[in-house]
Amino acid sequence: MKLSQRALDIQASPIRKLMPHAIHAKNRGIKVYHLNIGQPDIPTPPEMMKVYHEFSEKVLAYGPSQGLEVYQNGLVHYYQKLGIELETKDIIVTTAGSEAVTFAMMVVANEGDEIIVPEPFYTNYNGFATMASIHLKALTTYAENGFALPDDATIAALIGPKTKAIMLCNPGNPTGAVYSKEELVRVSEICLKHGLYLISDEVYREFIYDGLSHTSVLQIPGFEQHAIMVDSVSKRYSACGARIGCIVSRNNALMAATLKFAQARLCPPTIDQLAANACVYLPDEYFTHMVGEYQSRRDLVYQELSAIEGIVCKKPEGAFYIVAKLPIADAEDFVIWLLEEFQIDNETVMAAPAEGFYATPGLGKDELRLAYILNKEDLSKAMRIFREGLQEYRRTH
Amino acid sequence: MKLSQRALDIQASPIRKLMPHAIHAKNRGIKVYHLNIGQPDIPTPPEMMKVYHEFSEKVLAYGPSQGLEVYQNGLVHYYQKLGIELETKDIIVTTAGSEAVTFAMMVVANEGDEIIVPEPFYTNYNGFATMASIHLKALTTYAENGFALPDDATIAALIGPKTKAIMLCNPGNPTGAVYSKEELVRVSEICLKHGLYLISDEVYREFIYDGLSHTSVLQIPGFEQHAIMVDSVSKRYSACGARIGCIVSRNNALMAATLKFAQARLCPPTIDQLAANACVYLPDEYFTHMVGEYQSRRDLVYQELSAIEGIVCKKPEGAFYIVAKLPIADAEDFVIWLLEEFQIDNETVMAAPAEGFYATPGLGKDELRLAYILNKEDLSKAMRIFREGLQEYRRTH
Repeated sequence: MKLSQRALDIQASPIRKLMPHAIHAKNRGIKVYHLNIGQPDIPTPPEMMKVYHEFSEKVLAYGPSQGLEVYQNGLVHYYQKLGIELETKDIIVTTAGSEAVTFAMMVVANEGDEIIVPEPFYTNYNGFATMASIHLKALTTYAENGFALPDDATIAALIGPKTKAIMLCNPGNPTGAVYSKEELVRVSEICLKHGLYLISDEVYREFIYDGLSHTSVLQIPGFEQHAIMVDSVSKRYSACGARIGCIVSRNNALMAATLKFAQARLCPPTIDQLAANACVYLPDEYFTHMVGEYQSRRDLVYQELSAIEGIVCKKPEGAFYIVAKLPIADAEDFVIWLLEEFQIDNETVMAAPAEGFYATPGLGKDELRLAYILNKEDLSKAMRIFREGLQEYRRTH
Repeated sequence: MKLSQRALDIQASPIRKLMPHAIHAKNRGIKVYHLNIGQPDIPTPPEMMKVYHEFSEKVLAYGPSQGLEVYQNGLVHYYQKLGIELETKDIIVTTAGSEAVTFAMMVVANEGDEIIVPEPFYTNYNGFATMASIHLKALTTYAENGFALPDDATIAALIGPKTKAIMLCNPGNPTGAVYSKEELVRVSEICLKHGLYLISDEVYREFIYDGLSHTSVLQIPGFEQHAIMVDSVSKRYSACGARIGCIVSRNNALMAATLKFAQARLCPPTIDQLAANACVYLPDEYFTHMVGEYQSRRDLVYQELSAIEGIVCKKPEGAFYIVAKLPIADAEDFVIWLLEEFQIDNETVMAAPAEGFYATPGLGKDELRLAYILNKEDLSKAMRIFREGLQEYRRTH
């Protein structure tokens, strides 16, 4: 029995595909520090948990396809505090950022159409694109200059008759790069000139360091018809299991079409939306504290990596990832080796090979993505194991 | 700015698109009995609610892409009680039945491929197919004979080189038709002969009346490589807002590909899975009681409809819907009229025009789907309003 071409083509998650090796390590009694997956360790806000604990409706019913009105209003409030004025009609609540990305891609691109994405990029964009038979065209960026966006001509050279959108992740997963207002305006002008949408994945909005500020695609004047923002509560409230996100645009026709996609799947999870809504009203200190914690983790990981000879990486300004170019040929082989053959005091570490974050074959084979989502004590231990592991691997390979 | 063709093509939900008229009625102080949407009124089991109330993890984390192991095991137990032997590898937990249907369609069919579906069918199949650029080929069935499946030759005549699967809903939404074991075996033989998958949507499995029993596509011997089952907790546990479903197949290659789709969207909601798992262990009396209640509602609605001159419908054997052919030309116009211009003691009733459940243009214009998801007292009132409304509408139109 044959499967569809997209079923054969779709990439196995490079973040998750090495999990059997981690399980194998654990079964041998080895503790694995997981720097491979963006699962924050920060406790989910008690205000959010309280909503689950106190849900008192008799029937766990469908909500509206565009999301519960109370939560749409909550989101209007959340964005307003960021200086982004929206109406509820501009927001459709989704089942996590994943569904928001899928809707954004599908509403602008048909099968065979193209979306330009700077690589390395969040690997699951590949999966969503393959499912929708959309081609992602990679705009290569480089570890050496902190994965900065290339110049206009390089971007424009990728645009063809089938190109429908440019998609950015800002701050970037896996790069940690933050695009400045000037860079966003520059990309938006390219989009205006060529009649493209700009899809901006801003799920790491608050994870931004060194006093930098974040610019949303929704804050570019005159760009309302082109700007699509996708968002999620997963990272900012340490609530990945809630699966609540949203898609936001002031383009009414686009939102009307997106609503039809949303109606097909009926609605996002009901209680999880109510729980997410509680987070909207957290005091500002919640983020101050959280961002301070992540910034010091970033400093720790960056310092540790910089101290290793032969590693190339710039200090990332946002998200909670860092991509490091290693002085070895095959980063995936190194990760498997760490899990299967290396340990210090019965502990080892896991990272995500970066090759899967590139669309261009051959790129990223010598790079790893590390997520700094452990407390500093564990992170220190993990980085020591990483350093000594890399030394030993280079000695033996 | 142009949208994608699929964004333009996708059907607005015929179940939800008339909601503005219902809101308009409510804003005028009129109570609306909703027979238009399959939102059960039965309380969600307290055992399920208890899981939300007692969730005590500090971090609301991602689960595995295939679903939480505890819930996969719970599902193995649930199906075992039904006489269906499965292993956890045969099950991927999904974000509701909606995602399970999407995965099933995408894993067997590419853009431009065809899936045969008896019409009238669950209208959102259209949405999922449009999003995936798959063509649904309608196998027309008729109210006059209770929407029974046509003969082999009629089915085979629809099969072409692009046909990848037949998809059934059993028991059927919106028809209430239940396919016997013999009918399923007949369809499976057609699938075997033509190398097609059979996707069986069994979310209404327990909603089956008059002592009939349900046969799953997973219970047809020798059909393991072709059988794909999609399921959901929404209806059976009155938990539509939990958004938990699953896709089940013993075809290992198909499940491996489906897992890659599942990995792209990371995981279904975490607490909702744990809550769904509590339902697996409910005593059998839960269903006995629930099915008894729905059977008596079906009897009431069927009796009321049968008493109206000119209405054509057979007594449905399953699910909680009935499709009635009315002695009027335009059922949608009638529904809007009920909401905008008719009331008895400040109350009116809403049903779903059946036209949207047909893929063949022009069919179903004189049909309505009624969901019997209200208690019998309300249902009696709703059916009286329906009867008198129809009388008045016919007199004035």
